Amino acid sequence: MVAPEQLAGSAVAVIDVLRATTTAIAALANGAREVLPCLTIEEAHKRAARFASGEALLGGERGGLAIEGFDLGNSPLEYTPEVVAGKSVVLTTTNGTKALLHCRAAAEIVLAAFVNLSAAAEFLSQAARKRGSSIDLVCSGTDGQVTREDVLLAGGLAAAIAAEGNWQLSDSAAIARDAWQQVSGTASGEELNARLLPALIASRGGTNLCGLGMQADIEFAAQVDRFSLVPRFEAQAQSIVVA
Amino acid sequence: MVAPEQLAGSAVAVIDVLRATTTAIAALANGAREVLPCLTIEEAHKRAARFASGEALLGGERGGLAIEGFDLGNSPLEYTPEVVAGKSVVLTTTNGTKALLHCRAAAEIVLAAFVNLSAAAEFLSQAARKRGSSIDLVCSGTDGQVTREDVLLAGGLAAAIAAEGNWQLSDSAAIARDAWQQVSGTASGEELNARLLPALIASRGGTNLCGLGMQADIEFAAQVDRFSLVPRFEAQAQSIVVA
Repeated sequence: MVAPEQLAGSAVAVIDVLRATTTAIAALANGAREVLPCLTIEEAHKRAARFASGEALLGGERGGLAIEGFDLGNSPLEYTPEVVAGKSVVLTTTNGTKALLHCRAAAEIVLAAFVNLSAAAEFLSQAARKRGSSIDLVCSGTDGQVTREDVLLAGGLAAAIAAEGNWQLSDSAAIARDAWQQVSGTASGEELNARLLPALIASRGGTNLCGLGMQADIEFAAQVDRFSLVPRFEAQAQSIVVA
Repeated sequence: MVAPEQLAGSAVAVIDVLRATTTAIAALANGAREVLPCLTIEEAHKRAARFASGEALLGGERGGLAIEGFDLGNSPLEYTPEVVAGKSVVLTTTNGTKALLHCRAAAEIVLAAFVNLSAAAEFLSQAARKRGSSIDLVCSGTDGQVTREDVLLAGGLAAAIAAEGNWQLSDSAAIARDAWQQVSGTASGEELNARLLPALIASRGGTNLCGLGMQADIEFAAQVDRFSLVPRFEAQAQSIVVA
């Protein structure tokens, strides 16, 4: 994994397709005021306790399952407008939250998933061009291992960014781009989603979710460009808001 | 990188396409008796000193360049039958040798490159089936970073192995296979080599070699299945011989 100090000054996308970044994007798209990422369940309780009753929701997972006493799990389908509009969501997940905090030295940190692929690519390339910085794509993975769903999105971002500017891809970005192009072909819209879905189901994260009966979450996560917003992580406030 | 103890009992391919494994395969194909990998220049001198005059050759590189006082560099083109037939080649390279010694707990360790892709895939799948073990593909990379040329070969091996048996691919193997298939398409023979060459030239290892004026080595390394032999690393004897 890339060392935290190597990300200093960079524009970074944090990727946890199944499911943390997909869920955070859905929550913000459906009107949540902010998402507050926490490493531990204890920290999540503490942060939620600072809010007046009814202003914050506790969400997250351990081992893919909802946490006892929490309002919500980690399924993007739970974060509907009726549930989250106007609320602060305190979210604790394993790999995605770790990856986010790992990146805190970066100049700009955004959350990316297939559901905001084009918007995230556009935002990253503008942010990096403005600063004259590099772009880093950080795949959360699972327990320190890369997972295919995250690398495929990194490849989608690399392809989109490279297509509209004179960017040089690192070897790992080029590998991810090749893998993405092999899966996506030249498809777009519903056809692209349909090509992506079996790859996500067969991935390590997808296999885990299918085992838990959560295939609907994978279908949600496979909707390329469903949203056009980009969540930005404010490292000082430890808060994710719409950029 | 995979921890040494995780490789215990496994059938492992060590990959350093540009250039250590390509060069070792060429040396053995051209009649070298054995290749003796050494981590340091000092160790290489010591091992070579145990041979009678004319029986051993010193080969290798530091920073891609030949080592002062050595007989040969690390270009596969130098290891011709006239030079190496009947000789023991003491070889010290940076990333490839490290990767090889990293794998010493494995049950079976072979060297793979594009020049012996099909033979290596066949050997690995037979060896693993016989032992009921897994197969691990270890990419040497450069200074701890993955390089595209090594991952593409890992993908070629994964595709070949999966095509003729009921193997389950890890997420990283599936990513490598996707990247390989994107580059190779359905090409074979000369057309496949021609598709592979620009990808190898653009890779991190390839860019370094082009900078040193060694593009001919990349062209050599891009010859898929030029040889059908598989070198096996005997960990106890610290020697690489034809399997």
